[in-house]
Amino acid sequence: MCTSITYVTKDHYFGRNFDYEISYNEVVAITPRNYILDFRKIENLNTHYAMIGIAAGIADYPLYYDAMNEKGLCMAGLNFAGYAYYNEYEEGKENVSPFEFIPYILGQCTTVDEAKKLLNTINLVNINFSEKLPLSPLHWLLADKEKSIVIESMEDGLHIYDNPVGVLTNNPSFDYQLFNLNNYRALSSMTPKNNFSNQVDLEVYSRGMGGIGLPGDLSSTSRFVRATFAKLNSVSGHSEDESISQFFHILGSVEQQRGLCDVGDEKYEYTVYSSCCNADKGIYYYRTYENSQITALDMFKEDLNGNQIVKYPLVEKQQINYVN
Amino acid sequence: MCTSITYVTKDHYFGRNFDYEISYNEVVAITPRNYILDFRKIENLNTHYAMIGIAAGIADYPLYYDAMNEKGLCMAGLNFAGYAYYNEYEEGKENVSPFEFIPYILGQCTTVDEAKKLLNTINLVNINFSEKLPLSPLHWLLADKEKSIVIESMEDGLHIYDNPVGVLTNNPSFDYQLFNLNNYRALSSMTPKNNFSNQVDLEVYSRGMGGIGLPGDLSSTSRFVRATFAKLNSVSGHSEDESISQFFHILGSVEQQRGLCDVGDEKYEYTVYSSCCNADKGIYYYRTYENSQITALDMFKEDLNGNQIVKYPLVEKQQINYVN
Amino acid sequence: MCTSITYVTKDHYFGRNFDYEISYNEVVAITPRNYILDFRKIENLNTHYAMIGIAAGIADYPLYYDAMNEKGLCMAGLNFAGYAYYNEYEEGKENVSPFEFIPYILGQCTTVDEAKKLLNTINLVNINFSEKLPLSPLHWLLADKEKSIVIESMEDGLHIYDNPVGVLTNNPSFDYQLFNLNNYRALSSMTPKNNFSNQVDLEVYSRGMGGIGLPGDLSSTSRFVRATFAKLNSVSGHSEDESISQFFHILGSVEQQRGLCDVGDEKYEYTVYSSCCNADKGIYYYRTYENSQITALDMFKEDLNGNQIVKYPLVEKQQINYVN
Amino acid sequence: MCTSITYVTKDHYFGRNFDYEISYNEVVAITPRNYILDFRKIENLNTHYAMIGIAAGIADYPLYYDAMNEKGLCMAGLNFAGYAYYNEYEEGKENVSPFEFIPYILGQCTTVDEAKKLLNTINLVNINFSEKLPLSPLHWLLADKEKSIVIESMEDGLHIYDNPVGVLTNNPSFDYQLFNLNNYRALSSMTPKNNFSNQVDLEVYSRGMGGIGLPGDLSSTSRFVRATFAKLNSVSGHSEDESISQFFHILGSVEQQRGLCDVGDEKYEYTVYSSCCNADKGIYYYRTYENSQITALDMFKEDLNGNQIVKYPLVEKQQINYVN
Repeated sequence: MCTSITYVTKDHYFGRNFDYEISYNEVVAITPRNYILDFRKIENLNTHYAMIGIAAGIADYPLYYDAMNEKGLCMAGLNFAGYAYYNEYEEGKENVSPFEFIPYILGQCTTVDEAKKLLNTINLVNINFSEKLPLSPLHWLLADKEKSIVIESMEDGLHIYDNPVGVLTNNPSFDYQLFNLNNYRALSSMTPKNNFSNQVDLEVYSRGMGGIGLPGDLSSTSRFVRATFAKLNSVSGHSEDESISQFFHILGSVEQQRGLCDVGDEKYEYTVYSSCCNADKGIYYYRTYENSQITALDMFKEDLNGNQIVKYPLVEKQQINYVN
Repeated sequence: MCTSITYVTKDHYFGRNFDYEISYNEVVAITPRNYILDFRKIENLNTHYAMIGIAAGIADYPLYYDAMNEKGLCMAGLNFAGYAYYNEYEEGKENVSPFEFIPYILGQCTTVDEAKKLLNTINLVNINFSEKLPLSPLHWLLADKEKSIVIESMEDGLHIYDNPVGVLTNNPSFDYQLFNLNNYRALSSMTPKNNFSNQVDLEVYSRGMGGIGLPGDLSSTSRFVRATFAKLNSVSGHSEDESISQFFHILGSVEQQRGLCDVGDEKYEYTVYSSCCNADKGIYYYRTYENSQITALDMFKEDLNGNQIVKYPLVEKQQINYVN
Repeated sequence: MCTSITYVTKDHYFGRNFDYEISYNEVVAITPRNYILDFRKIENLNTHYAMIGIAAGIADYPLYYDAMNEKGLCMAGLNFAGYAYYNEYEEGKENVSPFEFIPYILGQCTTVDEAKKLLNTINLVNINFSEKLPLSPLHWLLADKEKSIVIESMEDGLHIYDNPVGVLTNNPSFDYQLFNLNNYRALSSMTPKNNFSNQVDLEVYSRGMGGIGLPGDLSSTSRFVRATFAKLNSVSGHSEDESISQFFHILGSVEQQRGLCDVGDEKYEYTVYSSCCNADKGIYYYRTYENSQITALDMFKEDLNGNQIVKYPLVEKQQINYVN
Repeated sequence: MCTSITYVTKDHYFGRNFDYEISYNEVVAITPRNYILDFRKIENLNTHYAMIGIAAGIADYPLYYDAMNEKGLCMAGLNFAGYAYYNEYEEGKENVSPFEFIPYILGQCTTVDEAKKLLNTINLVNINFSEKLPLSPLHWLLADKEKSIVIESMEDGLHIYDNPVGVLTNNPSFDYQLFNLNNYRALSSMTPKNNFSNQVDLEVYSRGMGGIGLPGDLSSTSRFVRATFAKLNSVSGHSEDESISQFFHILGSVEQQRGLCDVGDEKYEYTVYSSCCNADKGIYYYRTYENSQITALDMFKEDLNGNQIVKYPLVEKQQINYVN
């Protein structure tokens, strides 16, 4: 369904695969500082940090799937169907609807720690954007350069998990995903010794045998293990080109190829887009399923003191470099 | 180490991941019809089919890693260390050195069946290109639009296998790889029924659970299973853009991320390049590890009646499309 | 470490593998109705249901590992190290120490539902049997003929789980174990169809291929899956002989062979004993690692109105039937 | 289907699980030295080494499933359906039918090396025992105290494999089974180090985690890996009781529980019997699915100079030791 990761070389990178069977005319949306962030149950933010991210292109509101703000705080919402639970309105709490959640946090916070304070009083309230646009069941990865957390609103309350691996996929809840990594402790990027028995010679017939046991399917638990293994064993240079190249390769390890996840009615979940923010520089990079070239937008090239959302449709057509 | 696949939509596509820890200045090389193909032990081919492919850029000779000819016949050599065995010179046979093998076949044959006849008399003879360029231990995938075969020269003789799945990786021999697929017959692109027991409810907590059991590591046997599952369950449109996009996504399922396959001395095997030939149109597409944009060369835009190899260095620098 | 299961044919069966690297002179202990059950913090039970089970043979107290009472209620304690948490004494609660827990429940309850009521007020209090016999970190499987529950006292409180599969092993907590079964829904006792692809013939080269993916190691999560698969797919007759034979075979699927679980210092965890209670008839069957013959004790052949615990040492020497 | 193993402590042990969905009135049969071994195409053996084993109880002929001779040479036939190929009669060869094969070898050889010489001239000829008793497709494990070999008659000829692990199951051919062990080199009886990443703490939540990845199903390839892991990591004392106890526990690791291998028509393959020969002492031990006690027969307690086969029906009724 989706995979989000953080990655730090010289700069901080954050991004995600957005996996789904259809697209909602996604756009890259830059929300400048003076666009009025209208909230349903709490006071509006008339001025706030600017942010850039990918949003559904079906409303005027910045319905971000993932975004970063000008201070380098990053946040992504990922499918959490059957687990996410949004509450009734509660007096005395900050009643924020999930569709307002990313702008609410990124508009006001510069770090995860600042966000944590806001989360103390928050109530994720069950208010749809509109009749035609009901809430998605989500959980969120929130990261700055130093750390990341996972936010899950469930029937038994709001859970805030420190995320030591900087990876999030989907169901079930994050504590399970993290625990499940324990089962893979023997896996290695190196060729393992023969621990099976010293009574029999075993051949190293291939490179890469240290990873045997790594799951290769597209379920959320398998993607969590695979993305974590890829990220934590990743080796790249620190330049911008090397960093973003490696970032997309890590996301590539959990990409969903069209056809492998049949959701019925001849529909297939696939990786609609992959994104990579340079959170230090404010650049949003992305690729789409049909366009493997990286497209980039620099938020600081826009007028961040404006009051209108700036939208760029995704470049979805394959951009081939014909050299002869 | 490497993965090669065939794929047919409206046209026939053929390509491979080239996985290694270093690169040898690879180039795209077009060998026109009148370039003299010089062979060590058999008669030269003074005129032959033109071909295009990626070759080591370290000699004047077309040392192809993979190539297709103007008739749409495609061939790739993949690492087969410890299994490949090249013979002494044998009188009465066509004594072809492995480094000559791709030009030898693609220079003369238009189909797999034609190539099979040549293979009847061939002896893959142990002659190095030069002292500094010894032979690589290889086996080969050879394909036209209808079928593909695997060619393995081993100590017990030359093996020609029909390849019903159109996928090749590395060790061990192809019959093992094909047999090993039997262990994955229960895997599916669809959500499986609960076959475990009708006495307990089991939750479908994620999409993609039908693939649970698919191996996710980089060993040659795991890549064979994964690439085959991806290819055989692949769903794509038939246009050129959709076909090549899907082709690179299939190869992406077995891509080697740098860092995950540690070969010692701080070296890591990674996917140096991925290629995709349109064998019907004579276009060679590729991507490199650092450049995710597709680069393309059309062999028919070159003078195929020439007598000199035309070489294009790989475009390895990331080509980013900055839209603001 | 340990595996406990329930099984119902005509009668109700309950038992466990006790896996450890040493034994504490275990005995089969019958506690008659008038043996005074002495509790540290609550009132003694001067008369109670009689019970039979295996207990540590190192104290006069019935330190049961597992037991059933004369009404057919059965209970087993299994290792839960790192997860079990016993509390301080709490006023207004029934403060029962874990070492008193099995006699406390089996002494007073005839069904799981009755026990659940007692559990409402219980506080598992951190009181060692003696300085030399500290508490073991445990969780418990409690079962009657109709249902079973799991009881886990953790840092965040007492958890009572309905157990739809009637299996318990060890770490982590039961909700994880149950959730983890979801990953095995495709497994089957039957030969699976070829779901991999209709483009390739795959051979059914062996019977039993429907179970491919079942974990075969001795970790607690793998034993949970394997024992559940074995139990839920088990087929046996309903006679006493057939039932107990099948019961021991199910436990055999998760038996620990000596040497496969190395705990250091040349010690190995192995299945010290396996037990099977016929809870309807009051017969306690067991086998030990060194004695594969089933030994049986019938609680109703003892004077259940007595006031002294009756102990039988385990028959641990191999009993071979020499027929010539 | 079946698993056969060798095991050496102070003495040499050899045995097998016989897995099938029905039984053919198996008997323990002692063939004394002067029973005339009648062969179809070669000269009879009027006198020969005595042997003991389990045979089908449906003919006068010693149709052994597995046996040992008085010199300690042991042999078992295991299902090899779809792979075994028996030949036409061939002049100039020792034309032995597979049903004669075990008596033929055990009647004349004292060691594996002696048997290898006989195998040089053998032709396994396609002659049924009778119309009602056609040949089973088999391959064989042959072992003395020092070594073991596997004998497979296939369409491409007779294969004799040295067996470095002393284990045999069923399909496919032995070279595949042995190669497949390479994929499990990282598995260990010890707790593995955290090789996944030094950037995340992973919990050792259970003992036995070194074996994660070991397959737990009943297919022939999984039983081969599991039995080999169990045997090669096995730790036991050297006494007769400890040795045979451990031997049956190793076989227990690949036992087939009834219900887990559904072969249709409400039939289930299960472990009909497990056997363990002490090849040094001439004692044949066995257990059956319904009788977990070990039954023993000592060949040297029979008159080995006789000329009639001595048969003992299997003790199949559960022998319970009631101690009160």
